[in-house]
Amino acid sequence: MGLTLDELQLAARNHALPLEALRHDITPIGLHYLLIHFDIPHVDMRTWRLAIDGLVETPLTLTLDDLKARPARTLAVTLECAGNGRAFLEPHVVNQPWLLEAVGTAEWTGTPLAPLLAEAGASSDAVDVVFTGLDRGVQGDVEHDYARALPLADALRDEVLLVYAINGQPLPPQHGFPLRLVVPGWYGMTHVKWLRSITVADTPFDGWQQTVAYHLDEDTPVSRMLPRSLLVPPGIPDFLTRARTLAAGPCMLEGRAWSGHGAIEHVEVSTDGGRTWGHATLAEPVSEFAWRGWSFRWDATPGEHVLSCRATDASGRTQPDEGAWNEGGYCNNAVQRVRVAVS
Amino acid sequence: MGLTLDELQLAARNHALPLEALRHDITPIGLHYLLIHFDIPHVDMRTWRLAIDGLVETPLTLTLDDLKARPARTLAVTLECAGNGRAFLEPHVVNQPWLLEAVGTAEWTGTPLAPLLAEAGASSDAVDVVFTGLDRGVQGDVEHDYARALPLADALRDEVLLVYAINGQPLPPQHGFPLRLVVPGWYGMTHVKWLRSITVADTPFDGWQQTVAYHLDEDTPVSRMLPRSLLVPPGIPDFLTRARTLAAGPCMLEGRAWSGHGAIEHVEVSTDGGRTWGHATLAEPVSEFAWRGWSFRWDATPGEHVLSCRATDASGRTQPDEGAWNEGGYCNNAVQRVRVAVS
Repeated sequence: MGLTLDELQLAARNHALPLEALRHDITPIGLHYLLIHFDIPHVDMRTWRLAIDGLVETPLTLTLDDLKARPARTLAVTLECAGNGRAFLEPHVVNQPWLLEAVGTAEWTGTPLAPLLAEAGASSDAVDVVFTGLDRGVQGDVEHDYARALPLADALRDEVLLVYAINGQPLPPQHGFPLRLVVPGWYGMTHVKWLRSITVADTPFDGWQQTVAYHLDEDTPVSRMLPRSLLVPPGIPDFLTRARTLAAGPCMLEGRAWSGHGAIEHVEVSTDGGRTWGHATLAEPVSEFAWRGWSFRWDATPGEHVLSCRATDASGRTQPDEGAWNEGGYCNNAVQRVRVAVS
Repeated sequence: MGLTLDELQLAARNHALPLEALRHDITPIGLHYLLIHFDIPHVDMRTWRLAIDGLVETPLTLTLDDLKARPARTLAVTLECAGNGRAFLEPHVVNQPWLLEAVGTAEWTGTPLAPLLAEAGASSDAVDVVFTGLDRGVQGDVEHDYARALPLADALRDEVLLVYAINGQPLPPQHGFPLRLVVPGWYGMTHVKWLRSITVADTPFDGWQQTVAYHLDEDTPVSRMLPRSLLVPPGIPDFLTRARTLAAGPCMLEGRAWSGHGAIEHVEVSTDGGRTWGHATLAEPVSEFAWRGWSFRWDATPGEHVLSCRATDASGRTQPDEGAWNEGGYCNNAVQRVRVAVS
């Protein structure tokens, strides 16, 4: 592998979900994945305001109390980093070196965006709605505030929220205090944290994070999450290698599956390295926009086994055995492989 | 550097404190460092009990409610992993590859241990008090429950707590729910999480984590934290390299310093790669057992600079320029070096 010091610095500050935490329907604060491009901003609430501007009839300037006074909605939403799975790609892509655990599900509370855009009188000629955070830094040799845009039609969807609470608590600094965007179904780069402005524009947004980063190729931006499933590694780990040891006998494998392209239709499980597959039992969905639990009874026999799971969604998309390489190392939703020694 | 896949797996699941989070007196949940040897246990509270046994007159079996009904004490305590700084050591030590950020300060609430040991009637012949967690795995080819011991005199210190809350909230899974040990001043391996038993013994504890791990050499166990200081890197980062850019002019450098061997007496700061040092202004201590804030006014001039800080405690210990190598890669408290480009 041969990771660099730069990649280690990123792996240290950007937190992954330990796979055993897949057991929780709602990920506890502190176990949810984090990808923070620049530094976590230090926000002074005496001066913080959200600006809604650009092609609007009435620009708005809102305090956090203004936003909390509006209708509130709580949604359980699964977020996954677009770079999840990157560290398995060959040739190696130098960037945040995610293995498989850049995911989490939280109950996000906020106010819907669409009524705010209506109140501001967003122009119907608008093309993009640009969301800008307070986090500033350099990436690809370009100094910029982190910003991403959504096409107007996507920004107006009912489930798009301006969020100020997670799991019933005020957003902690690392999740975007005081306010972040949540766009259910989309990869993590969309959910802009530490929001300071929402700008309605009649030209496509050309910011670095929009036009250079987060593309599979020049014409294919990253958007909604591909289907993925993960299993809780059974048995006990070795500290250093995370190799698993399990006692022979019946074992209930469990995990989660999600997709941004449609409901999870089925999850298959293999205990022989992908030669044969059986169907897992699906739990009730946590929400329309969250992962779905699954379980699979396995009679573990002595020997070495490779466990895998594979999700298929309502759009017909399924997980590949091998991820497709791209320059940014995005969207590698290849099936997980967990080695287990049973004795 | 050339990190292995094993080390990357550890770096992903064990979370570091992003250095900008040093700004908080009390680290928000989710930004505190985590070192989890095995898996986070899934605890069934219908059956969970704490056993206090061994050389006691009256063995105790306690529920969480029993513990919460006892006198409560809240202490702000800085915890640091004994492996902090390991990734900078040469030759390379293969283990959790911490850079500098395996630290955090929380307000821990629990009940003092000493009155419980008195109530159980711990024998005065006791040598060690053994704390065992629910987390089980393999390390150094030995399968074991995570367990560590304290000499009786250390276990009886006033500030040693059985903790059930952090920052005013029930312990989350990753911090040891439902109960953990907190021993102010000691490195992180001491503060056993997911406690299931406390056993009073008249022989020295010989568990793997006690006698094989956490030693500088065969005769020198790791115990209290050496002094260390860290600074919040000023300016803005490059995403990939974390290289810092700062505008010329007055800049208030800030950071934290702590030691398990005595109060922080002074912190020195260098902005020229360690050639000259000035004294930082110390803030009031957060508590007797927590880090101390410091600040240092720097007139940043155009060019490349290397910033460092160096703490000295009341015992006279100070930070070295280079850490001493040992097989486990423990206790590397060498001074931090932060490169900044000022323009």
